[in-house]
Amino acid sequence: MSETAVISAAELRPLAVATLTQAGASPAHAAATAEILVEGDMMGLGTHGVLRLLLYGERLRLGGIKAAAEITVERRAPSLAIVDGDDGLGPAVAMTALEEGFAMAAETGMAYLGCRRSHHLGALAPYGLKACERSLVLLCGTNASPTIAPWGGREARLGNNPLCIAAPCPTAPHFLLDMAMSVAARGKIRKARDEGSTIPEGWAVDAAGRPTVDPAAALAGFLLPFGGHKGSGLSQAVDVLSGVLSGARFLTDITPWTEFPEQASGTGHFFLLIDPARLLGAEAYGEAIAHFREIVQGTPPADPDQPVQLPGEREQQRRAAALRDGIRLPADLLETIRALASGAAA
Amino acid sequence: MSETAVISAAELRPLAVATLTQAGASPAHAAATAEILVEGDMMGLGTHGVLRLLLYGERLRLGGIKAAAEITVERRAPSLAIVDGDDGLGPAVAMTALEEGFAMAAETGMAYLGCRRSHHLGALAPYGLKACERSLVLLCGTNASPTIAPWGGREARLGNNPLCIAAPCPTAPHFLLDMAMSVAARGKIRKARDEGSTIPEGWAVDAAGRPTVDPAAALAGFLLPFGGHKGSGLSQAVDVLSGVLSGARFLTDITPWTEFPEQASGTGHFFLLIDPARLLGAEAYGEAIAHFREIVQGTPPADPDQPVQLPGEREQQRRAAALRDGIRLPADLLETIRALASGAAA
Repeated sequence: MSETAVISAAELRPLAVATLTQAGASPAHAAATAEILVEGDMMGLGTHGVLRLLLYGERLRLGGIKAAAEITVERRAPSLAIVDGDDGLGPAVAMTALEEGFAMAAETGMAYLGCRRSHHLGALAPYGLKACERSLVLLCGTNASPTIAPWGGREARLGNNPLCIAAPCPTAPHFLLDMAMSVAARGKIRKARDEGSTIPEGWAVDAAGRPTVDPAAALAGFLLPFGGHKGSGLSQAVDVLSGVLSGARFLTDITPWTEFPEQASGTGHFFLLIDPARLLGAEAYGEAIAHFREIVQGTPPADPDQPVQLPGEREQQRRAAALRDGIRLPADLLETIRALASGAAA
Repeated sequence: MSETAVISAAELRPLAVATLTQAGASPAHAAATAEILVEGDMMGLGTHGVLRLLLYGERLRLGGIKAAAEITVERRAPSLAIVDGDDGLGPAVAMTALEEGFAMAAETGMAYLGCRRSHHLGALAPYGLKACERSLVLLCGTNASPTIAPWGGREARLGNNPLCIAAPCPTAPHFLLDMAMSVAARGKIRKARDEGSTIPEGWAVDAAGRPTVDPAAALAGFLLPFGGHKGSGLSQAVDVLSGVLSGARFLTDITPWTEFPEQASGTGHFFLLIDPARLLGAEAYGEAIAHFREIVQGTPPADPDQPVQLPGEREQQRRAAALRDGIRLPADLLETIRALASGAAA
């Protein structure tokens, strides 16, 4: 286990920007990407935090992520737009979509933006939080290269496509659901393998489609969707919204970037915004969602020491703590980032 | 087990209409409701088919469902509307929303419609199919009175709020996901109780929040969400979209209509439409979704005799069979409906 270092978000952001500009990214794309990854770390989503700078940087150097990408937005209808990422950095593509969506929702009350020719975009929760801070409801999702078999199948053809549904509350915490479609994340299986332990039944099957508790066999096989046919169906629905409707690649047509880091992945995302104040008035909406939160949080807990939380409440608590006390990172990761930012390593 | 009767949709619809008009409903609301319930039976969703006419009729007579409801639509923004059901029949409220949504999507490319003061609306899949037949993508959902505890809680505060995501294919079957949020439906637990069998672990907990395999204890307790915290969060998200954004009741504020059939339930729904042809062009979209379907259906199956199906494919196969061969119903149910339709029973 590595030692832990503590750094403020204000210090970490320019370091993250510099690692990306050193790898060729434009300052604007690097800034959008740094913003989202640092938010991921603040929320405690370390697998989708600045750790990703290493992979993003490698792919920028190899050309899989296009450093000089020109992201364009085309309005297809008053409430519909396509964002073409030109194979650039995912968070830069996604933030372009979100900002355009804010403007569109101000016009018609809502917006759908499909992103094509994008890449890994970090965690979804930071985008949900940004929409909440603009008092907008957000549904968003992304597709990913296949790691899950469709229900009843024995070959990975579905991505672990996360879905985020966020609704602003007048005061924090906001309603901030962010979930992927497998029973357990691949990272947890990798951890079990590294620690030499087994994984619970029901997480994964081996390459032949047989249930396994061996993490190595699971990593060579594929993940199981949560809720069986339900998670399998929902993963497909997220891909329809992210990949099919945006004109991106989808399912097995997405290039797995761990295998082909020099190639564009063709990933698709979607961002769907709704202005609740236009529907109900800001005050009536604010009262309703605050009442909703009270009912959920007021549920008698199964464990008296564990109050029932709203989705994303814990992530927002962690974020508040990180803003106050700094972000905790593995010391060697921070060291590597400092070296990459100064141009000393690649 | 009751004997089975077979009847064509064309014969069943006017019978269903008559049972509702006999109970006081307007011909237009009765027609919309009959249409949705008969579609439910055709898709093999018998718990959400014409069986519901008995409950709807009882509530119309008791006044919980308002027979002379005046459903109104108010546009709040170019892509946003609120549908006030005036406590009328749920399918009539929902079909009003869907038809208005078709018109709105033709203008701005998409629409969100929140329904308030509604009731049980039948199954969601029939609405998804109607959107697909208009070449539109539909996301829709409804809230319901509480039967599920939020994750970490020991009191039912969430409904088993179903979510439907439908995307049209140029030829059937369409992509038609329709799923509720519990591991297993309450109807399956009632069936186990009636048959004197136990239920699998993980379906439900008793009134004290303890796991149980006793169906009676489960019915006195509450259902478990599929995927633990994921299903719990998704149920809440559907309620935010159905209940909070529409200005309807939500969570524990919904009146359980089995206990209070003489009272309005205050149920909320949402319908969200996207025109894929405006995003991509009809031809490019049609090719993409057909390719999507091919990849899913082409997955090597775990059981060679069970090809991998698209969500909703089986329901559409059953519907085609019902159109060809007629709808199979319990003979005593059909008998009751005939009696109610002729005004002979109540």
